[in-house]
Amino acid sequence: MATSITWSRRMFSKCHRIFHRRKSNASVSFSTAKALGSASTRDLVFTGIQPTGVPHIGNYVGAISQMVRLQQTYKDRMLLSVVDLHALSIPQDPSLLRSNILDLTACLLACGIDPKHTILFQQSMVPHHTELAWILFCNCSVPRLQRMAQWKEKKATIKEPSVGLLTYPILQAADIMLYKSTLVPVGEDQTQHIELTRDLSRAFNSRYGLVFPECDMLAGEIPKIRSLRNPSNKMSKSEPSEKSRIELTDSPEVIAEKIKKAVTDFTSELTYDPVNRPGVSNLLDIHLALCDDIDLEDILEDSFLSAEDTGLYKQRLSQVVAEKLAPIRAEAIRLRADEGHLLEVLGDGADRASQIASETMAEVKTKLGLR
Amino acid sequence: MATSITWSRRMFSKCHRIFHRRKSNASVSFSTAKALGSASTRDLVFTGIQPTGVPHIGNYVGAISQMVRLQQTYKDRMLLSVVDLHALSIPQDPSLLRSNILDLTACLLACGIDPKHTILFQQSMVPHHTELAWILFCNCSVPRLQRMAQWKEKKATIKEPSVGLLTYPILQAADIMLYKSTLVPVGEDQTQHIELTRDLSRAFNSRYGLVFPECDMLAGEIPKIRSLRNPSNKMSKSEPSEKSRIELTDSPEVIAEKIKKAVTDFTSELTYDPVNRPGVSNLLDIHLALCDDIDLEDILEDSFLSAEDTGLYKQRLSQVVAEKLAPIRAEAIRLRADEGHLLEVLGDGADRASQIASETMAEVKTKLGLR
Repeated sequence: MATSITWSRRMFSKCHRIFHRRKSNASVSFSTAKALGSASTRDLVFTGIQPTGVPHIGNYVGAISQMVRLQQTYKDRMLLSVVDLHALSIPQDPSLLRSNILDLTACLLACGIDPKHTILFQQSMVPHHTELAWILFCNCSVPRLQRMAQWKEKKATIKEPSVGLLTYPILQAADIMLYKSTLVPVGEDQTQHIELTRDLSRAFNSRYGLVFPECDMLAGEIPKIRSLRNPSNKMSKSEPSEKSRIELTDSPEVIAEKIKKAVTDFTSELTYDPVNRPGVSNLLDIHLALCDDIDLEDILEDSFLSAEDTGLYKQRLSQVVAEKLAPIRAEAIRLRADEGHLLEVLGDGADRASQIASETMAEVKTKLGLR
Repeated sequence: MATSITWSRRMFSKCHRIFHRRKSNASVSFSTAKALGSASTRDLVFTGIQPTGVPHIGNYVGAISQMVRLQQTYKDRMLLSVVDLHALSIPQDPSLLRSNILDLTACLLACGIDPKHTILFQQSMVPHHTELAWILFCNCSVPRLQRMAQWKEKKATIKEPSVGLLTYPILQAADIMLYKSTLVPVGEDQTQHIELTRDLSRAFNSRYGLVFPECDMLAGEIPKIRSLRNPSNKMSKSEPSEKSRIELTDSPEVIAEKIKKAVTDFTSELTYDPVNRPGVSNLLDIHLALCDDIDLEDILEDSFLSAEDTGLYKQRLSQVVAEKLAPIRAEAIRLRADEGHLLEVLGDGADRASQIASETMAEVKTKLGLR
């Protein structure tokens, strides 16, 4: 459940920008450019990821590998925040949360996030997020929040939902606006939240003077990886069975065991049919998502030519997955053993994020008459 | 209206502590003691005041003069915050807000708040307030906030109330808890808010481990000063007519003019009868509130012996008020002319407040698993 409440962790393999009609934001000053080591006034990407521990391959292909790609396109123009304050909006075990933050950080680095070119930081280390959030709280109506689809959904299932659950879309808007971000790679479930962010930016600019650009979504086709146990659901941390997902630090033996136990069906031939054979098709989706250099026809043809049944294919896939994850796994384990280094990376990222954030907040406070 | 939404500015002339049954808070560590320059673990007072500009005599006798008295009793154990973040929960004109913050600061100093012995600071200069508020947002249910009487009242009159208006009692709780305050001098309209603060402290302690003491209210008899134009209402900044109130920096001529125009009745004799003669009685209340060394009988007897009618009494009162306010007025005007000094006082107060606040937040973050 923690995984779905904010900052959807799925992004898009082939990103495209969803343009919105812009108001005259031409003269918004991008102090961000300087702090990010670039003199240009090009786009700035902000993305958040929930600290739910070691990511699974669904997170990897749906979000992290895309972040690594975006890092190439938006080199020195991307912030990646481990959004621990968002995680608090549902109950957390403190020692698990602590370890989840470090697990995730180690894995992000192991997957290729380079803190030299991306500002990687822990949200709660930058106090400006909640400062700006409060100011936006005072400029957003309660009914506007109550109309959010995700709130209606949560309210229906949780008896006494927290104020954090109602208001986190505003914190999310603050996350984005604080850095004058222009591009936000999020899933379509976040469309309403991005719309809110744009509304809040526009309202602030029109009431107090131009400070914030209006951000656009980066959207595209999602590679969907489903649960190994219940292929009708997406692969998720919130599913109780650990066998439902492959985590980035799983050993080859564990990977083989999980894939072996993956729910398929009684047809031994390998075919791709997501509707009638969701289990087997999900295995093929995993294969395709992890290997850029192979296509579906190749896999099916290989299988047919070698008279490989589903059981044997599972063994082949296990090897492929283990090989693909081997370097990430080794690096993540190595990094995770050095907490001092992880904290240094996060601390350094927070310093750089704070530098941008404090410039924005100085502008905001001056506009509001607070300084 | 700004005056009524939070941090009631009326306090009590003869304060008494409203004790609550305490849970075992004996071992809460008062890091505050050190930062405030005292080695003891005695009570710590937190009080907030809305930046609505130059205070009127209702604010003075109802709140500020009491703060000055509390400063004696709780020397080096009091924080006084100009709560500008609360002010934002209703629309503000930025340049007016800026000037209101400085006007209020100058007046507080002129009235006797001594920044050597009281930590006087501007709320928005200490980012930990909103940081702790977010954490409390995640530990307070929406229905709990919706049950607050002040919210119900506001919701009924404002079409699209802001999220700030719904959630400010939590920010107020954070204000208090951030310094592990034990005593909060507020009016009875704030009882529910203090109860919320106590609940949030208790819930945090029980869920994450002991961090916060449960605060008590400081309450007592209120000297009520009413509007000079509508004596059925209390004297207030939100009343359109400036003639309804005497401000601390009003000149003797303005004071005389306002008192001369004060609504009274057609009986010329001076008597005290709040129910049937609210206007005249309010003038007597002002007189009594400003002069500790005189009682009602003396005033009425003097008036009777000198055959003084209401008109002449107004002249006498004008002189008394002008004399009482003269030193405050002179000092407030002098201080207000030196913005640099006011900013230095607020900046220094914010540094000292931040020192305490950052210790509390370090504890809180460790308990939550954020660090």
